[in-house]
Amino acid sequence: MNFSELKKRLMKETRTKVANAVSPDIMIIQAMNSIDELTKTLNGLTKRLREWHAYALPQLEHSLGDNEAYCKLLATKSYEELKEEFGDSMGKILTEEDRKMQEEFAKTIYLNFQLKENLTNYIEELMKKHLRNVQYLAGTTIGARMLVNAGSIKKLAMMPASTIQMLGAEKALFRHLKSGAKPPKHGFIINHKLVAAAGKNKGKVSRILADKISQCAKIDYFKGEFIADKFLEDIQKRI
Amino acid sequence: MNFSELKKRLMKETRTKVANAVSPDIMIIQAMNSIDELTKTLNGLTKRLREWHAYALPQLEHSLGDNEAYCKLLATKSYEELKEEFGDSMGKILTEEDRKMQEEFAKTIYLNFQLKENLTNYIEELMKKHLRNVQYLAGTTIGARMLVNAGSIKKLAMMPASTIQMLGAEKALFRHLKSGAKPPKHGFIINHKLVAAAGKNKGKVSRILADKISQCAKIDYFKGEFIADKFLEDIQKRI
Repeated sequence: MNFSELKKRLMKETRTKVANAVSPDIMIIQAMNSIDELTKTLNGLTKRLREWHAYALPQLEHSLGDNEAYCKLLATKSYEELKEEFGDSMGKILTEEDRKMQEEFAKTIYLNFQLKENLTNYIEELMKKHLRNVQYLAGTTIGARMLVNAGSIKKLAMMPASTIQMLGAEKALFRHLKSGAKPPKHGFIINHKLVAAAGKNKGKVSRILADKISQCAKIDYFKGEFIADKFLEDIQKRI
Repeated sequence: MNFSELKKRLMKETRTKVANAVSPDIMIIQAMNSIDELTKTLNGLTKRLREWHAYALPQLEHSLGDNEAYCKLLATKSYEELKEEFGDSMGKILTEEDRKMQEEFAKTIYLNFQLKENLTNYIEELMKKHLRNVQYLAGTTIGARMLVNAGSIKKLAMMPASTIQMLGAEKALFRHLKSGAKPPKHGFIINHKLVAAAGKNKGKVSRILADKISQCAKIDYFKGEFIADKFLEDIQKRI
């Protein structure tokens, strides 16, 4: 083997190593960040559509609070159908062009909503593959949020349970450290259905749950078995 | 005619009046605000896509600065085609699912770009109909921005030329009034090609142009003839 051939081979090997240095959790983190950006986006755009469309059918704007349902309705029904469904309008009689433009606006926003849903499904699949135990116990969204805050599966696995319990409550934690305000009892975990249902015991349930999620992260990082269902049973017995 | 019939008739008349109270300039203003929201949105989303896709083809992210061109490329070409065009990658070898998700992300963002373009065309048509003289002299974007700031064609028509010249420079104007900083010489008008080309005479050209735009707004509001081409000739003679 001559020198140039050796160089080529080494280059190829380096490339492969660099390529593989990107772990799959990065895809989850990127998708999660994209969802957050989309959420911001969708709020802003829907607000615009509502304001604009209110000149056509003002009664519709008030009767549908949910942004996604609102955009879907406008994206899938014609102006005439909407008028029939929501009653005769006090709004302006729009030209054909105005209506077309509003309809396209609604349709595009709705496609963004669908993208958000697909990103959510994508994350769910990835979590199932790489963080199965964490996902089962924490849920897809809370688990993914923890991963984003930790930075990688490895970092999440190395965290003590008490840190996992606080993930997402950094602001309150630093406020506590700086000004002596009450320490937070829970971060993202507060949204977990077990914690939400715990009434006055939110702190205790958070602690127990975070403890098990921490174990799950370690198991998932070291590619262990699926055991989260037993963990869940344990937790339910203890609370 | 009995009472209930009379009531019905009056209601109908009121409805029509309310409906017609919404003037077409509102559509321009709403569309313009939607474009601004979309611009913000598109910057944020493309930034996300760039960061995410850089794990696949890092060299692509750097070679295409324009956001729309970048999204279009990713939306219309397959990963294999991109790889061929931009050289072999150091990036991660993605799974089929990762690629599909990134592609859908790019495609949806690109649809938002197309919506923005269609909104621009829509505004152009409306301006041609309702603000023909202003559009000819100021250009679609500058004219529409002036309209948004003024609030309506009527308000724009009632403005003195000096106010039109400052539209869009409110921040600098109030800074001037409060702290005695230099007064601004031009608002949106600074982006006009005649002003941009005026070198040291930007102030003078702005004043002349604003003067004529102000006249155009009055003519358009009172549904006068098309005369802006003559105005433009006048201006070009004077500068």
